Amino acid sequence: MIHFECDYTEGACPEIIARLTETNMLQTAGYGEDEFCASAADKIRRLCQSPDAAVHFLVGGTQTNATVISAALRPHQGPLCAVTGHINAHETGAVEATGHKVLPLPSTDGKIRAAQIAEYVEAHMHDSAFEHMVRPGMVYISHPTENGTIYSRAELEEIASTCRRYGLYLFVDGARLGYGLAAEGADLTLPDLARLTDVFYIGGTKVGALFGEAVVITNFALKQDFRYLIKRHGGMLAKGRLLGLQFDTLMTNGLYERISGHAIRLAMKLRAGIKEAGFPFAFESPTNQQFPVLPDALLERLSKKYSYSVWGKPDAEHTTVRFCTSWATREENVDALIADLKA
Amino acid sequence: MIHFECDYTEGACPEIIARLTETNMLQTAGYGEDEFCASAADKIRRLCQSPDAAVHFLVGGTQTNATVISAALRPHQGPLCAVTGHINAHETGAVEATGHKVLPLPSTDGKIRAAQIAEYVEAHMHDSAFEHMVRPGMVYISHPTENGTIYSRAELEEIASTCRRYGLYLFVDGARLGYGLAAEGADLTLPDLARLTDVFYIGGTKVGALFGEAVVITNFALKQDFRYLIKRHGGMLAKGRLLGLQFDTLMTNGLYERISGHAIRLAMKLRAGIKEAGFPFAFESPTNQQFPVLPDALLERLSKKYSYSVWGKPDAEHTTVRFCTSWATREENVDALIADLKA
Amino acid sequence: MIHFECDYTEGACPEIIARLTETNMLQTAGYGEDEFCASAADKIRRLCQSPDAAVHFLVGGTQTNATVISAALRPHQGPLCAVTGHINAHETGAVEATGHKVLPLPSTDGKIRAAQIAEYVEAHMHDSAFEHMVRPGMVYISHPTENGTIYSRAELEEIASTCRRYGLYLFVDGARLGYGLAAEGADLTLPDLARLTDVFYIGGTKVGALFGEAVVITNFALKQDFRYLIKRHGGMLAKGRLLGLQFDTLMTNGLYERISGHAIRLAMKLRAGIKEAGFPFAFESPTNQQFPVLPDALLERLSKKYSYSVWGKPDAEHTTVRFCTSWATREENVDALIADLKA
Amino acid sequence: MIHFECDYTEGACPEIIARLTETNMLQTAGYGEDEFCASAADKIRRLCQSPDAAVHFLVGGTQTNATVISAALRPHQGPLCAVTGHINAHETGAVEATGHKVLPLPSTDGKIRAAQIAEYVEAHMHDSAFEHMVRPGMVYISHPTENGTIYSRAELEEIASTCRRYGLYLFVDGARLGYGLAAEGADLTLPDLARLTDVFYIGGTKVGALFGEAVVITNFALKQDFRYLIKRHGGMLAKGRLLGLQFDTLMTNGLYERISGHAIRLAMKLRAGIKEAGFPFAFESPTNQQFPVLPDALLERLSKKYSYSVWGKPDAEHTTVRFCTSWATREENVDALIADLKA
Repeated sequence: MIHFECDYTEGACPEIIARLTETNMLQTAGYGEDEFCASAADKIRRLCQSPDAAVHFLVGGTQTNATVISAALRPHQGPLCAVTGHINAHETGAVEATGHKVLPLPSTDGKIRAAQIAEYVEAHMHDSAFEHMVRPGMVYISHPTENGTIYSRAELEEIASTCRRYGLYLFVDGARLGYGLAAEGADLTLPDLARLTDVFYIGGTKVGALFGEAVVITNFALKQDFRYLIKRHGGMLAKGRLLGLQFDTLMTNGLYERISGHAIRLAMKLRAGIKEAGFPFAFESPTNQQFPVLPDALLERLSKKYSYSVWGKPDAEHTTVRFCTSWATREENVDALIADLKA
Repeated sequence: MIHFECDYTEGACPEIIARLTETNMLQTAGYGEDEFCASAADKIRRLCQSPDAAVHFLVGGTQTNATVISAALRPHQGPLCAVTGHINAHETGAVEATGHKVLPLPSTDGKIRAAQIAEYVEAHMHDSAFEHMVRPGMVYISHPTENGTIYSRAELEEIASTCRRYGLYLFVDGARLGYGLAAEGADLTLPDLARLTDVFYIGGTKVGALFGEAVVITNFALKQDFRYLIKRHGGMLAKGRLLGLQFDTLMTNGLYERISGHAIRLAMKLRAGIKEAGFPFAFESPTNQQFPVLPDALLERLSKKYSYSVWGKPDAEHTTVRFCTSWATREENVDALIADLKA
Repeated sequence: MIHFECDYTEGACPEIIARLTETNMLQTAGYGEDEFCASAADKIRRLCQSPDAAVHFLVGGTQTNATVISAALRPHQGPLCAVTGHINAHETGAVEATGHKVLPLPSTDGKIRAAQIAEYVEAHMHDSAFEHMVRPGMVYISHPTENGTIYSRAELEEIASTCRRYGLYLFVDGARLGYGLAAEGADLTLPDLARLTDVFYIGGTKVGALFGEAVVITNFALKQDFRYLIKRHGGMLAKGRLLGLQFDTLMTNGLYERISGHAIRLAMKLRAGIKEAGFPFAFESPTNQQFPVLPDALLERLSKKYSYSVWGKPDAEHTTVRFCTSWATREENVDALIADLKA
Repeated sequence: MIHFECDYTEGACPEIIARLTETNMLQTAGYGEDEFCASAADKIRRLCQSPDAAVHFLVGGTQTNATVISAALRPHQGPLCAVTGHINAHETGAVEATGHKVLPLPSTDGKIRAAQIAEYVEAHMHDSAFEHMVRPGMVYISHPTENGTIYSRAELEEIASTCRRYGLYLFVDGARLGYGLAAEGADLTLPDLARLTDVFYIGGTKVGALFGEAVVITNFALKQDFRYLIKRHGGMLAKGRLLGLQFDTLMTNGLYERISGHAIRLAMKLRAGIKEAGFPFAFESPTNQQFPVLPDALLERLSKKYSYSVWGKPDAEHTTVRFCTSWATREENVDALIADLKA
């Protein structure tokens, strides 16, 4: 079986495995207070051109989302997000588990717009029963989104200024950030993210690491006591150096960008192949997730050889599926898939 | 600096690193639904002689404690534990974050006794304001405890039967379980734990793994939907195979027992050395944590070469410290420490 | 100003005020363990033909909803409800504050249907990522709904049997239950509610009492330790007798039915008047809340004399508003409003 | 049976009942936005000499404590309080239900001292594992305490300055505040409380009202959005005017002081009687709760005629009990009890 169902089917970049092996018997302090974490944080601050940013390393995305959101909001506040956003749809209520209602906004492509945010907040403020409703306190977006789409710099600037106008935190879930930064036509950069958001994270789990998300906090208030909050949420890894080491490796010599670019190149190749084969897409994705709408008969054949995710059922004879490439995808597998799609 | 302050200063057993390397580019399903997790779970069930146990793998101890406790209790219930218990003292309120008050019982050696549990529950039941107090719903103990002490089989049987009498779950935190099973004079076994508890876990983080705790659930009600609860708490590792692979390795050919035994042998050597040097102990520990009471003048000298944890200040001129050995401790370092203690 | 904006603008039935006055200096036990609560609970059990039901008295609806829902669900479960349901829309996230995500279903009239529930649960069960989503554990409906609509006995039976089929609790919010039972064409009764639901409540705040909701629990599991849960949620009134006394009065000699009928008679009179005046309704409500769509010019005139709630803005020149009658509404005020609507 | 077990066995001051009756059919806005609440808040601000204070009315103490504490603290913080404090001992974990661990300090008389607070915070700050422990974020004290004892102005000033030094909120639970202000030898006043605390409340439930606690917030940050937090916690009374009306009545013409003084006078009479009868006290209480240590044989006789609370069992033949007086206590009942104690 060749796996295309997600971008976390393999282990980690060989560079990471090599360094894990080399440093294995080294003794270090625990809980992220080691030299690998310090070095990785420094590199991230430099790449973000944000010398005062606080950088923390957590194991996974759901944990990171819940920790950041509960750290930022007062009890009666909730995060605005796309109805398809990961925190709303696929985290088994991890944000609600911290006491905060997620406030979903309609979205067809995974993105939300500045105007939607403004409209929601204005409506809230002018509703006579406003105190009987959860107060929006944050905007949560994913970049890229669940549908593979990305925000332009102009879009993020507009969202950021809307957030500032209404006193909302802006939080960007970057579980697949590498693929967003490397996407065709992308103009957002790490310094943009550091400048425009209050907090965002750089995904490792899906972009070359065994696991790990690097949280970058630029908002002063949010930096306070963040390590307590990580611990309280069960996210403080005893051997924190494992996280530091992985991000230190990814952030050295452009490895993170290089492997992200690999995934994008193969995704674009796959996309072109699907187009040539005559199949439409549910979403226009310039990133590593592609969502073709395929005939069920074809899928039945493909499923003997390839795994993929089922995304929807637009009609009785077609299915929208997701194919993912990643840092680890082998070109020969993409070629084989394209050939089978065209056959 | 030679580290003795805790048992998680190194990476993992070479066997684990080797297998991580070998399997790195293999593609597997995510979220613990891979063959490594299945194999590791099978081995654990066999070692526990508990063919129907549910086995789940989580990343760390605090996360595991909060997930298990919130899975088991109704909202008005709390876990009874030693006042020194990890959930009460060192998890930044992670259990309270799930809405449950921890109910501490006095303890001087890290253990609690069946009689204390019975007395607490009886007092609760007979208090006229019982509904105004948190109802005990579980007993949480650590084996070994925070002070390195262990429970005998007879003690655990008495606690288990007390729990059954009062309708309390029994949960054993086994973050250092290997060292407890391998301790001098220990008579508790994995099958005993599976038979006597409702749920316990086998620690990996401190016993040979990079990270990971294997939760063994024997109580039918607690098994229901446990994976939802892991996900809700941010504990479902995308590349779950990393956990499966580590426990599969540890549970093969007696590796877990062997490396635990190594730590115990060196701990007993250190203990004998401390005794010979004439220093007393704060707790009688047969496991890998040793708690000597040392003169501050000596500690000042030692601290230039060794790191250790400070545990208390019995008087103005002495300090209780903790030295830990582990699967990774080198005998030459123990020898050096003993020599310096005697010097 | 004549108030029609809600059904809690006055105090309580004169019978209640009289009895409060008479019994004021009587000494009783606290926390609902008094003879008034016992008597009221008995009367409710008889009216429900449910001799084993547990009956508890809480102060308000939001508190009752959060207490019941968090008492019933495991942490990874959530209540299904209409998107317009009170717990989803107007409780400032009180259910999420207990850790549970509310799962909204589309609704245009405030009701949800058995088929929607079945479809949602089937989709959840068959989604490959089901463990990454909140599990439906309860159905929450209001009777009457936020839009004044009511369920028929056949509808509730179908919902109840769907709940049983899928292992969901059925919880009916009866904040305005009196008006639902007394509505034109209503065929649901208290014994039906007791028979078909796991838990429901009989609203006092909006139906003749100063405050108070009477929770009727027929499900055995839910009865356990419910008083602890009330206390934990801050809902145990020290002078609980105030609740018992009010419900005892309302449940004596058909007072609750009689005052509910008064509100319905005036609501139907108002409804007929609005129809005669030629205005349409946003919802077909047979209960005490009426939702006409009125020209803004007319509303500007009315607002000088009457207060009402704004419900929506169907177009630039019209507004949907809510007029409520209650046990306390004076017929002359309804007559005046009708006259002004026709003028 | 003559009730002395608590101070909430009767209804309310006749003045309150009269005003409830008079205003019963008046129409007002809901949720505390009525003229009674506005007037009561104004009177409280004047009595506190705190023109900018925010004043809110909640129904009961447990609800108030949980709402205030969760409004004030970030998730990793907890309130310091006496081990006997109401939030620690008798609220079924209502504070933990909001995610915050209560941090108990030892106390033999219900009070905590400034030095204890400073010592705890210093120890926390200097512990190398400080981020693994809940951070103290508030001091919670009761005035009077659970044991009837009171703070002097000097003591409260010292606590307040300690709180400011360490960045802790100071919150005073005044469920029995009237009796504390009226106690023999008391020098604390409402303006002192407003000046020294960040938030405190004036108890109504136990001091003349049917129910209700008036929260006075002087800290600017805590005032923000407090009504959302009340609603989220299920504490926003639909007919909020009931609370406003009661406090408006209590705060008019010195009624609150007068009825508090009545309770104190009778408590002191009872105390003198107990002393004359030769019985010792467990606590030196100048307020309305008295805690004599009585022979069990005597108690058996008394219990046929009087109800009281059992507080402890100092030895096999004696019991510490609590007798309470209140605004409603009749002098003839105190006289009868004294006579029976002396008999």
